[in-house]
Amino acid sequence: MTRSPITLTTDFGLGSGYVAEMKGAILSINPAAILVDLTHEIPPQQIAAAAYMLERVSRCFPAETIHVTVVDPGVGTERAIVCLRAREQYFIAPDNGLLTTIAEPTSGLEAVRIENRRYWRDLISATFHGRDIMGPVAAHLSLGVPMSDLGSPQPDITRIPLPTAVVTDARIEGEIIWLDTFGNAVTNVHLDLLPKPPCDSVRVGCGQLELAGIVRTYADATPGTLVALVGSSGRLEIAVVNGNAAERFDLRVGDPVVVMTPPTS
Amino acid sequence: MTRSPITLTTDFGLGSGYVAEMKGAILSINPAAILVDLTHEIPPQQIAAAAYMLERVSRCFPAETIHVTVVDPGVGTERAIVCLRAREQYFIAPDNGLLTTIAEPTSGLEAVRIENRRYWRDLISATFHGRDIMGPVAAHLSLGVPMSDLGSPQPDITRIPLPTAVVTDARIEGEIIWLDTFGNAVTNVHLDLLPKPPCDSVRVGCGQLELAGIVRTYADATPGTLVALVGSSGRLEIAVVNGNAAERFDLRVGDPVVVMTPPTS
Amino acid sequence: MTRSPITLTTDFGLGSGYVAEMKGAILSINPAAILVDLTHEIPPQQIAAAAYMLERVSRCFPAETIHVTVVDPGVGTERAIVCLRAREQYFIAPDNGLLTTIAEPTSGLEAVRIENRRYWRDLISATFHGRDIMGPVAAHLSLGVPMSDLGSPQPDITRIPLPTAVVTDARIEGEIIWLDTFGNAVTNVHLDLLPKPPCDSVRVGCGQLELAGIVRTYADATPGTLVALVGSSGRLEIAVVNGNAAERFDLRVGDPVVVMTPPTS
Repeated sequence: MTRSPITLTTDFGLGSGYVAEMKGAILSINPAAILVDLTHEIPPQQIAAAAYMLERVSRCFPAETIHVTVVDPGVGTERAIVCLRAREQYFIAPDNGLLTTIAEPTSGLEAVRIENRRYWRDLISATFHGRDIMGPVAAHLSLGVPMSDLGSPQPDITRIPLPTAVVTDARIEGEIIWLDTFGNAVTNVHLDLLPKPPCDSVRVGCGQLELAGIVRTYADATPGTLVALVGSSGRLEIAVVNGNAAERFDLRVGDPVVVMTPPTS
Repeated sequence: MTRSPITLTTDFGLGSGYVAEMKGAILSINPAAILVDLTHEIPPQQIAAAAYMLERVSRCFPAETIHVTVVDPGVGTERAIVCLRAREQYFIAPDNGLLTTIAEPTSGLEAVRIENRRYWRDLISATFHGRDIMGPVAAHLSLGVPMSDLGSPQPDITRIPLPTAVVTDARIEGEIIWLDTFGNAVTNVHLDLLPKPPCDSVRVGCGQLELAGIVRTYADATPGTLVALVGSSGRLEIAVVNGNAAERFDLRVGDPVVVMTPPTS
Repeated sequence: MTRSPITLTTDFGLGSGYVAEMKGAILSINPAAILVDLTHEIPPQQIAAAAYMLERVSRCFPAETIHVTVVDPGVGTERAIVCLRAREQYFIAPDNGLLTTIAEPTSGLEAVRIENRRYWRDLISATFHGRDIMGPVAAHLSLGVPMSDLGSPQPDITRIPLPTAVVTDARIEGEIIWLDTFGNAVTNVHLDLLPKPPCDSVRVGCGQLELAGIVRTYADATPGTLVALVGSSGRLEIAVVNGNAAERFDLRVGDPVVVMTPPTS
């Protein structure tokens, strides 16, 4: 268990020192903890952005990884903090929708409400439960404390509505769900919804933009070209080769994206 | 000792590669060093900002942690480099005031001037003692080298003036000492100076702003509300719930903040 | 071998989660991997910037360090991925010029083309070989897999033209090759080309700017002064003491810099 990484996802920004406070709290309990920053640049209080990030990046981590996510506008209120067991990993977060993408909607949920103060810091602030509760609990979990010791079973967790792509015969209606650091616009249209490649006859529309075909990789078109492709998370994205599509075309999260697939004759 | 984390606080920015140069120098000496970034976004040459950050964040780290702070406008001059033992931790920094918040003003100071070249890199540049001296010395300390081997005792360290809150009968006069990444304005008015909660009848003023009462946590008011509260470092702060107070009200470090406490009748 | 650090250099930005995906992929193979961020702020697709950074920072790391560099506009095309053994370290990168600064032009090159899929992830995306190939290969290397197992020998690697300083009798013609986070403008004029200090009679010109003499360290002039000095990477740089030379004088990568050395009489 000691080799389980603990990942941290927050809206703190790296410059704030708050991330380091969490790390100090964790290392005070498990000096051998393996800490990995997932990201600390979630826009302040943007729960959906964190939920997407967590869903995507957690898949790359080994079994038994402990993911701590702190985007917590309700800190200090009666909102619960939960630990969810899913995909052979642990997810600790305030119960405010952050785990919407992780908790399978239908299955019997394996989760606890974090209540046992034995695994918390001695003094609990009203504004920083990442440092005072979630980090310490993750540290204890990484030392082998069983999840069931953390609190009582939590039958369900809070979910937030996230846009899903709507599929009709020859049309998929989705939207942009995040913009990456390259300015690529990632959509909620998953690979599974698209026809098998090659997708030359597929057309992708986004506002005034219309793209013919889906390329396989960025370098399949010349620099500066606007392309649609399936990115590394298995989602359709709109990109400018060696450029920044979001800036150039003022793309934003929530912009509708339509995929027109040819009739399968 | 090998389990002592080494934290790094600098004004280098993460993009520069200078932080990585320090880490490489440390790992060349102690390959098992546990490195934690405290922050690298101290504004260039802002010693006071680093001193506040160090004071706050170091408290979350375990005993025997080694904190290396490199905000060093005087690099290459005759300014000393010191190692201070305080709060059961070690603090390595240029002696330019960075440790003002750590060195207790009154106690007998346990510190050395870093002089023993045996624990330095072979070649010492004139401009990067974080990589060439402070990092390597921290690495040796983490391997068990006693502090007394690093150099001769340093009777006192350089202190910079930092603003302290002035308390009169029904009034506390303080100021904003840092702005965090959420735009919360943190003041030098510590919890200890405030009346016991609830603080409904306390009034807080900052420029044109006037706030009635001190709330317990952000979510105690509706989003967009300006509130005063005691933050996770035990200091009074001014915040906008789910918003950015610093941007919205153009708050700056050094702005005066006045707390009017009701007469205790 | 398990103690070999793995460094990561990318143009991903820390906020994207892509860096964390690479780390998760590495930790899935070697849970004890020691991961160090070299930088993730290489401007998108700027191969030369990464090549300079790698050259400079890798020198501070111990022997057997594994450096993974992912600035990869040609991802998913036929461009090779290589592992180069140089300076007693390993360098894994797409073969697009990133290792220009590392591969000695004249020596017999010790390198392989990364081909053995046994050390890759099961599923290889078309757009993220840092996560799917380079990270995993580095992880296996850190566990003791010999380089020769990764693929067949690669007789030479791709090099990109990088500007070199031209030296004549009393004149060195170079240029700015990077701007650091302090706004210091670092040139391709290496220490070895300059006369032995003191360099009071040397003159340095850059556009309209002309500087008399080369100082030893920043603090050798008063704050706000424009100075030339040899920085911590052994290169001539132009700096403003406690200020930002790049911003103040609008300095840019590629700007010519001339050093006029006095005739050695």
